[in-house]
Amino acid sequence: MKTYAEMNEQELFALKAELDEQFKTEETKGHSLNMARGKPGVSQLSLSMPMLNVINIDSDMHTLLGNDTRNYGDWDGIGECRRMMAGMLGVKKDNVIVCGNSSLNIMYDTVVRSMVKGVNGSTPWCKLDHVKFLCPVPGYDRHFKITELFDIEMINIPMDENGPDMDLVEQYVNNDASVKGIWCVPKYSNPTGITYSDEVVRRFANLKPKAEDFRIFWDNAYCIHHIYDDIQDEIPNILEECEKAGNPNMVYVFGSTSKVSFPGSGVSAIATSLENMDYIKKFMTTQIIGHDKINQLRHVRFFKNIEGMKEHMKKHADLLRPKFEAVLNLLEAELTGLGIGSWTKPRGGYFISFESMPGCAKAIVSKCKQLGMVLTDAGATFPYGKDPQDSNIRIAPSFPTPEEMVEATRLFVLCVKLAAVEKLLADRQA
Amino acid sequence: MKTYAEMNEQELFALKAELDEQFKTEETKGHSLNMARGKPGVSQLSLSMPMLNVINIDSDMHTLLGNDTRNYGDWDGIGECRRMMAGMLGVKKDNVIVCGNSSLNIMYDTVVRSMVKGVNGSTPWCKLDHVKFLCPVPGYDRHFKITELFDIEMINIPMDENGPDMDLVEQYVNNDASVKGIWCVPKYSNPTGITYSDEVVRRFANLKPKAEDFRIFWDNAYCIHHIYDDIQDEIPNILEECEKAGNPNMVYVFGSTSKVSFPGSGVSAIATSLENMDYIKKFMTTQIIGHDKINQLRHVRFFKNIEGMKEHMKKHADLLRPKFEAVLNLLEAELTGLGIGSWTKPRGGYFISFESMPGCAKAIVSKCKQLGMVLTDAGATFPYGKDPQDSNIRIAPSFPTPEEMVEATRLFVLCVKLAAVEKLLADRQA
Repeated sequence: MKTYAEMNEQELFALKAELDEQFKTEETKGHSLNMARGKPGVSQLSLSMPMLNVINIDSDMHTLLGNDTRNYGDWDGIGECRRMMAGMLGVKKDNVIVCGNSSLNIMYDTVVRSMVKGVNGSTPWCKLDHVKFLCPVPGYDRHFKITELFDIEMINIPMDENGPDMDLVEQYVNNDASVKGIWCVPKYSNPTGITYSDEVVRRFANLKPKAEDFRIFWDNAYCIHHIYDDIQDEIPNILEECEKAGNPNMVYVFGSTSKVSFPGSGVSAIATSLENMDYIKKFMTTQIIGHDKINQLRHVRFFKNIEGMKEHMKKHADLLRPKFEAVLNLLEAELTGLGIGSWTKPRGGYFISFESMPGCAKAIVSKCKQLGMVLTDAGATFPYGKDPQDSNIRIAPSFPTPEEMVEATRLFVLCVKLAAVEKLLADRQA
Repeated sequence: MKTYAEMNEQELFALKAELDEQFKTEETKGHSLNMARGKPGVSQLSLSMPMLNVINIDSDMHTLLGNDTRNYGDWDGIGECRRMMAGMLGVKKDNVIVCGNSSLNIMYDTVVRSMVKGVNGSTPWCKLDHVKFLCPVPGYDRHFKITELFDIEMINIPMDENGPDMDLVEQYVNNDASVKGIWCVPKYSNPTGITYSDEVVRRFANLKPKAEDFRIFWDNAYCIHHIYDDIQDEIPNILEECEKAGNPNMVYVFGSTSKVSFPGSGVSAIATSLENMDYIKKFMTTQIIGHDKINQLRHVRFFKNIEGMKEHMKKHADLLRPKFEAVLNLLEAELTGLGIGSWTKPRGGYFISFESMPGCAKAIVSKCKQLGMVLTDAGATFPYGKDPQDSNIRIAPSFPTPEEMVEATRLFVLCVKLAAVEKLLADRQA
């Protein structure tokens, strides 16, 4: 089989004509498909419906310690839910604050707090001329939006199959005092699906930051979000590793049940050192009297503990696996050997990351849109929405049905091919 | 009857001996009472228990517009809940964003946003040398804590039975560009229980702020929290009044169902101009994907609409009224004519405000504590916790049972008397 690049102009034109024909046919069909958002599918939402019966008019609304979850109190979350979320994040209960429905909101609050009042007493970032964050790319668009909103300069850090380029991370963090943070999704990363290697995690823990107020924003969003029963990624406990390395305060760990129970109606948590928690407490107890403890009770009465959560996640995996495989199988069948794209094969999380030929991502997304299929904007996985190679596309297979995913991937493949042919022809004629 | 001040030294000493005796007797009883927190009582929480059955495994989880509340979406709240909360706040649905469980959190976010990024494009407050807030006193301690945390200078504004001293408010707001905000609880104010007069509300709307980024923080926390069926306070619609006065963007209105459904598990809302909402949107959509829509659905399916909420509030009133009356009757029976204290007689809200003789509040709180009764710290109702007169004490009658309230008030009265006698004797001997 020839790669597209090996084809001569005539072959490319012939291929283009054929693909154009297919494109026109698809255009008339009025598709309406969406591979953009990392939303659980309806069948996944149904898995958690029994949770809504767990707390009812007859329920004892008290925690194990006897506190009434219906009233004010327990600003850091009810004990049993803190324990469960600690289990999820692989940390100790004492290091966990259970918050509201959104871990993104905790991250936003953490950045804002540092902006206005600094980190554990350091100079507020808003008083500094330069504040920089490192951004492993491709990464999560909503992380980048937070730092962008607060005018924090973002620096791209390339990722490979082991995680971020740690030589570069060390070079920045250990030498530049204006580097104050790094966004990480260490497990089943958004969007690549890769998991940081043990060595990468340990190199993170052993950073020697030039800035005392440097923090790792460790968004362990997909910590128990495996797709397979038999092959599961695990990472070292970053809190412990940081402590061992003499950097106990260097990391904030975030997580939520948004993709365990319900997006928007789950519980979120932050895990960090006791010293960091003391500082956070001062702000959080001013910000809010307490988070939704009835919902915390609902979660812990439903899942019982981390083992219950893991069992539940197997059901999610059973629903997600066919969707991932539908995409992966079709990509493999249709694109292997053509030299016009590569993609990741995640063992968990919510995304597949596709690398087109450089300069083709925007064209692919635009063509898909023309066919009635929504993809995440090209560039969205990079700070400022700027993919320097214009090659990365995030595929979210979770929301459509497996049948829709096959249909969507078919259209996607068609657009990848067409964009590649057009790019090659344009390059040759340039 | 003689006032205490009219008594001679001998009479005061005799009275003191008698009160000391009573105090000692009470001290041995090991009381454990609390009039400190504005928490609903257990019987009030029970009123909302049926709400927990409204959403269950068999529920249609879609909004009237067909959106699945279990999934991401509707950052500004589901339509039917926005309508209901608009009804509660007396504004139009389009001006409302329904948020999470805490209106305090929205206020905090609003202040923080202004600190870091300014108000609708103004200079961020953190870049200014002086930022001031006006604080009608006595007021809500948690408001003051927010502005204190961010080093915003707070200026006391005296209140009378019509609301804040508007001459003073106008003088500050209309002449000092560093005055950026004012904390208001316009209805059944915390802690005085007074409601702003129509004239006061209109004078607020007609302010001519020197600072373009001046905002009124209108915490309508007790908007439907009447105690009586027949005598209910109402206030003009501040959003409309501001619009009429040519100040459409000058006010943020806040409210929640914390004391309608469950503290900590209710829904909160902000109501403001469309222009302000546009600015807020930019931040809120970066901060969070969406708030807890299942809980919004739960609330709106239970209450149906504002009429349903009002019906529900009558049940709360029936439970609160006897507690308020227990306190008020005892204060009246025991303290009238003695010249050692005055108090408010609210028609709604959660508090009674007590004014002791100047210089006695701390002593009263401390004496109560000695008897095993917790009161809100003296001074808490003032910025920086400093009551210049040392005279204000906030009484929260909601949480104890009516019987406990009688007992608590009896002890309170004893401590008020004892503190007054001691103060008078100390003054004479000075």
